[in-house]
Amino acid sequence: MSASQPDLPEPAHPELDSMLSRKFGKEVANYFSGSPLNRVSFLRTDHPFLSLALKHPSTSFLLFKNMEPLVKSSTQLTYVSYKDVQPIIGEDPYAKSEEDLIKEYNSATYIPQLVFLGLDERKKESFQYKNHYQGAPFFALDITPKGPITSAAETLISNMESKGCSFLPGRMHLSLPATEAAIYAASRHLLDWNARNPFCATCGHPTLSVNAGFKRTCPPADLAPSLSSPDAPPARPPCATRTGISNLSFPRTDPTVIMAVVSSCGTKLLLGRQKRWPPLWYSTLAGFLEPAESVEEAVRREVWEESGIHLGRVVVHSTQPWPYPANLMIGAIGQAIPGGEEIHLGHDAELEDARWFGVEEIREALRVGTSGLGDAPGPEYKEGGLRLPPQTAIANQLMAAVIGGFLGAEPKI
Amino acid sequence: MSASQPDLPEPAHPELDSMLSRKFGKEVANYFSGSPLNRVSFLRTDHPFLSLALKHPSTSFLLFKNMEPLVKSSTQLTYVSYKDVQPIIGEDPYAKSEEDLIKEYNSATYIPQLVFLGLDERKKESFQYKNHYQGAPFFALDITPKGPITSAAETLISNMESKGCSFLPGRMHLSLPATEAAIYAASRHLLDWNARNPFCATCGHPTLSVNAGFKRTCPPADLAPSLSSPDAPPARPPCATRTGISNLSFPRTDPTVIMAVVSSCGTKLLLGRQKRWPPLWYSTLAGFLEPAESVEEAVRREVWEESGIHLGRVVVHSTQPWPYPANLMIGAIGQAIPGGEEIHLGHDAELEDARWFGVEEIREALRVGTSGLGDAPGPEYKEGGLRLPPQTAIANQLMAAVIGGFLGAEPKI
Ligand SMILES: [Zn+2]
Ligand SMILES: [Zn+2]
Repeated sequence: MSASQPDLPEPAHPELDSMLSRKFGKEVANYFSGSPLNRVSFLRTDHPFLSLALKHPSTSFLLFKNMEPLVKSSTQLTYVSYKDVQPIIGEDPYAKSEEDLIKEYNSATYIPQLVFLGLDERKKESFQYKNHYQGAPFFALDITPKGPITSAAETLISNMESKGCSFLPGRMHLSLPATEAAIYAASRHLLDWNARNPFCATCGHPTLSVNAGFKRTCPPADLAPSLSSPDAPPARPPCATRTGISNLSFPRTDPTVIMAVVSSCGTKLLLGRQKRWPPLWYSTLAGFLEPAESVEEAVRREVWEESGIHLGRVVVHSTQPWPYPANLMIGAIGQAIPGGEEIHLGHDAELEDARWFGVEEIREALRVGTSGLGDAPGPEYKEGGLRLPPQTAIANQLMAAVIGGFLGAEPKI
Repeated sequence: MSASQPDLPEPAHPELDSMLSRKFGKEVANYFSGSPLNRVSFLRTDHPFLSLALKHPSTSFLLFKNMEPLVKSSTQLTYVSYKDVQPIIGEDPYAKSEEDLIKEYNSATYIPQLVFLGLDERKKESFQYKNHYQGAPFFALDITPKGPITSAAETLISNMESKGCSFLPGRMHLSLPATEAAIYAASRHLLDWNARNPFCATCGHPTLSVNAGFKRTCPPADLAPSLSSPDAPPARPPCATRTGISNLSFPRTDPTVIMAVVSSCGTKLLLGRQKRWPPLWYSTLAGFLEPAESVEEAVRREVWEESGIHLGRVVVHSTQPWPYPANLMIGAIGQAIPGGEEIHLGHDAELEDARWFGVEEIREALRVGTSGLGDAPGPEYKEGGLRLPPQTAIANQLMAAVIGGFLGAEPKI
């Protein structure tokens, strides 16, 4: 599920690669990263480009109902074409410029959320723009039956279901192939962000999705009739998000730290468990980075708050997008200071237990005891043995890195 | 301004430290990180604790007006005591439980924003709670004259100004000592987040600051008279942020990537400049991480979008909180792949120029040509020479790391 080396744009220089690997180990491309799409983010306001991409025969639309993606099976997403979604999105939602759409804003109009994901450069011949940007276009679309799209959405859903397709619930996404999982992750993160933020947090008025789904703007006027004053002019009160760049207009991603904690002697790993997990199931500690913390500080704070342990050096290992709903997991490896290894669970009540495990016990559990939270471990697992998260979780990759000698004085090659 | 090694909770094991340094280099504690305060985040809902901390004689309040902190000079914050702020905050804003404050919520009541920052453990003797949590308490308070606090705030401001204190505007913060800068950064990030988010982005109704300034909740009822229906009951419509944990209730931090880009041969660094910068001033490229990207992917995407250059391996170097308003700068070092080094500025229009600079030119500029954006370079700077950001910027630290051999096959000790 998780490659040890990502697909780089072109093969890297073998000497350089070997030199860097000697120093830092191989780059780990965690599950949900590794998208094959070039986002061409600077084309998101270019409506002529978006119109062409939307209607091209090589274009794929990933459909969602209540944040669940349409799939052929739990190991394969399915896509539809422009003619399938046209009854839902209309002829061309990009026919007018953003400027005009903002001028004509009417908060009473329901617009199904459409997101431009990027160009699949593995299929360069399929679509071209300005002789420079090539690849099959990908969009995500929310077709949850709602308001004016109800009937068209229900028709498309029945059609797809009659072909054996279905909407895949949350727990199942981790069996998608890595590149599909990355396309799913970007789609879900953006659809969810748009759905959670229909109102402006600064002025409380409804907002409009622009930039092909990557921005929400607070229009200065609204043509919808106001309930409290039906004859009021459409202008709205001033809003600070209009007079400068505001981060609130852009998708939110929450940095999270997750860390393999090694004992000062380097022979034990600290793992913890939450009460709701299956018996014997442990994982690395994790928590949200707080305002005005470095990653290294957040790792030391979280470990102390959850387990009482004092860390010295902290090193970032790899990172992972986690779209439930909007996390960036920053994976780190930290080492306890001598004398700072006593476990104390009394500060924060988050963990039911935290314990030091020997490296050999973890090595064996990584071999036989990994599984998704709701699944059974593999056939070689012995009753009573330690259970750990699967390879798709960065927690697993961090433990594997420690076992593989990431912290050792002499890196393995 | 920027220490090469942070103050760890206790001195780290010398052997371990030397082993890790050999492999990863020294940990860089960037400016705005390195706070001396223990956040004891799990005590933020404990109102009896907050009440005691608030009124303790050892407690310090950092005051802000329009997001500018009160200072003695540009190199020293100033703090006031409980008796100074009592006319503004009232006897005890933590006298009632959070539950009761939510029940009594009235959106028409102005409450000046107060944030509990943590305990300064360098002064353990000053304050104790439950025999376990010790240190002088720190709070931040917004005293911008407004609504019912106008007169009390103006009085306090005149008092402080008559003692020679003033409010420090944005450009000046970078001359604060590192630990003060960290306290300022946390205060500003949290006050700004509360100020930008008075409304719920999910339902559009006003929200209430709870968790000592680290959460905003959407109360189920509002005792304020409604303009449109003055006799309406205080209950508000259902809101999804109330029925589960929503990230929208918590402070936002935007992950940003910033990267020193090395040529494939390792002898040149890529720098770029924006039009609004002083002539000859260059810096590393940077940009926001997007939804469902790993840090490594975001670095490769941003570098390609802004400069046309294709990167292979990417390694995280260090991180920096940047409170203007809410960034986490993730500093990385990346290396171009052979054949991927041609500069193309045509994708995105962000940079006015991007160029490869020789390592020796950068070494010299780091010695003589650094300064804040509005300041003059040092006395040894020669007209026409390259200018670079100061040591307080992670961009400077990344360049210094490359020059110092971070990527070299044999790390320096
Ligand atoms: Zn607004
Ligand atoms: Zn709400």
